Amino acid sequence: MTLSPTCVCPIETGVVMSEPTLMRREILDIPQAVDRLLSEGEAEVKNAASMARDIDPEVFLSIARGTSDHACTYLKYACELLLKKPMASVGPSINSIYGVDLDAAGSVCLSVSQSGASPDLVAMTKAVSASGALTVAITNHASSELAKTAQVTLPLHAGTELSVAATKTFVTSLVAGLWFLAEIKQDAALIAAIKALPEYLERAVRCDWSEAADAITGPSLFTLGRGPSSAISNEAALKFKETCLIHAESYSSAEVLHGPVSIVEQGFPVIGFAAADPAETSLAEVADALADMGAASFATTNRVKTAKVLPHVRTAHWLTDPIAMITSFYGVVETLARARGINPDTPRHLNKVTKTI
Amino acid sequence: MTLSPTCVCPIETGVVMSEPTLMRREILDIPQAVDRLLSEGEAEVKNAASMARDIDPEVFLSIARGTSDHACTYLKYACELLLKKPMASVGPSINSIYGVDLDAAGSVCLSVSQSGASPDLVAMTKAVSASGALTVAITNHASSELAKTAQVTLPLHAGTELSVAATKTFVTSLVAGLWFLAEIKQDAALIAAIKALPEYLERAVRCDWSEAADAITGPSLFTLGRGPSSAISNEAALKFKETCLIHAESYSSAEVLHGPVSIVEQGFPVIGFAAADPAETSLAEVADALADMGAASFATTNRVKTAKVLPHVRTAHWLTDPIAMITSFYGVVETLARARGINPDTPRHLNKVTKTI
Repeated sequence: MTLSPTCVCPIETGVVMSEPTLMRREILDIPQAVDRLLSEGEAEVKNAASMARDIDPEVFLSIARGTSDHACTYLKYACELLLKKPMASVGPSINSIYGVDLDAAGSVCLSVSQSGASPDLVAMTKAVSASGALTVAITNHASSELAKTAQVTLPLHAGTELSVAATKTFVTSLVAGLWFLAEIKQDAALIAAIKALPEYLERAVRCDWSEAADAITGPSLFTLGRGPSSAISNEAALKFKETCLIHAESYSSAEVLHGPVSIVEQGFPVIGFAAADPAETSLAEVADALADMGAASFATTNRVKTAKVLPHVRTAHWLTDPIAMITSFYGVVETLARARGINPDTPRHLNKVTKTI
Repeated sequence: MTLSPTCVCPIETGVVMSEPTLMRREILDIPQAVDRLLSEGEAEVKNAASMARDIDPEVFLSIARGTSDHACTYLKYACELLLKKPMASVGPSINSIYGVDLDAAGSVCLSVSQSGASPDLVAMTKAVSASGALTVAITNHASSELAKTAQVTLPLHAGTELSVAATKTFVTSLVAGLWFLAEIKQDAALIAAIKALPEYLERAVRCDWSEAADAITGPSLFTLGRGPSSAISNEAALKFKETCLIHAESYSSAEVLHGPVSIVEQGFPVIGFAAADPAETSLAEVADALADMGAASFATTNRVKTAKVLPHVRTAHWLTDPIAMITSFYGVVETLARARGINPDTPRHLNKVTKTI
């Protein structure tokens, strides 16, 4: 497909900057990055899926940290909902700190890392592979240590990402992993929806969330999700912390009323992520309940009554909706950071590649 | 063993109350509650472990919400480190919202709930059981729906818990689950350490964390852990939110430097939970790094250099250390709540039994 050139962002407000930030440019590149992955990655995805089908695993594993671990939470739900097989997130410390070689024979393990460079992820992937698992690396660096260690690699084809805050590599990790699972299941409708993503993401990247940005005036907020969207909520909360220095925390909409709701006060901002899936109504009800307690509550669904609707794009399949939601979300973080006088490309205390052991 | 009568708490400060809160009384009952579990629960634990050994599962599952899900995070690490088998936390929504019956044949599933009453936990447990898993309920209500649904039940024997904030049921959930795993492995040293817990917990419940309480003056803080202690960090953060209306967030000490560190400012409180295990040094180093950035950083380890040491009890096994740490922790939350004029027994917006679907 042909994509329009990078647009002028309609939600550019507040601070006047001489040129767009790297983060803004990389957000605007998301539709093209996904298009590159879809154009260039098919052989790798089909090959890996074929190997996984041959194994017919009882369980899937994932190994990741930070933003990539949020991608794995999304892929866990997708795996359990599509293939009906559990996916366990395994901490790299099991191997790197505690020296235990997990018995992973017969499983399929996804190791997700933008850089593919962190020693503990590499070591854990090596250990799981040695115990008999099929290891699949999802990384933007096809010649990284992680890619060399895993048995097969799905390169993200996202192009260079320079902003410390990962955006297009997160979105392409979701797409690559979901595509892999859809190919395992040979789910034609989902595969078609994945291939249609770039045009939906072109619209998603232009959604205007400035009303939500204006409501975020204090030091804290909650993000909410349920099912696959809970991963988007996790990622959104991390980005608020990394990039805006806001203490955002992510909850399941089913759990927020169990305890965390205690800290909700008048005007406390809440952003709910809802796909057009069976969780949509319950998420809307929780967003409304929080609005009724006085929260400044927003959600990506038209089903809310007292909470406010965030502009959102529905895709061709409910499992791809979360990919459009996070694409719409990222812009507001970049805007809010600049409005607070922060350069989102270089958050304090952070580096692009963090190596942990 | 004989336990001393309920003590007068040495960290009682601040607000003068006519009598101890329910939460305080239940915290002080933790050593006796664990003693009851150890005295009365052995047949049930050994029977469940024998059934699990016969199955020899490739994977363990867990089903839980809120505080009980933190217990499952601890049990996941214990399972992976002791038995070398992955444990996947499965969201009840897979069944209750999305209508998917997970393929769990040949697995062992722990369903953990203080009340055993939440419909989604019961439904998910039923679905997993029907697909062929051995389902084990861990609950304080041996006649609850969850207990009736699971194939075997490990009652907590914790006695009545009236405070909305769970304390002794969390600790006994850790002990019951760990004991089950230790019996599967027939790990004599660990079983002996579990049986010795009440005397260590008598000391742990008297540890004085008032220096940390005094440092918590703002709206936010971080808790840190790694490996099994990360579950304790999760639970501590939830208790600060539920009971003190403080926006506390829990991180892996390996991940906090990846992004969340951005919000750390001068005097920002950090509480690190470290056991006498292979993660202790790395947690101490992160606590020190945060202290060097200006944080008011505390940790339950003598290995810190610039962070402050929290009083802590080392038990007879590194895997039981986290159980002593959370027991030492709870008192400071109750003290801090009262100092802020909050009745910790009845946090706003919360009920003792939350039923989710």
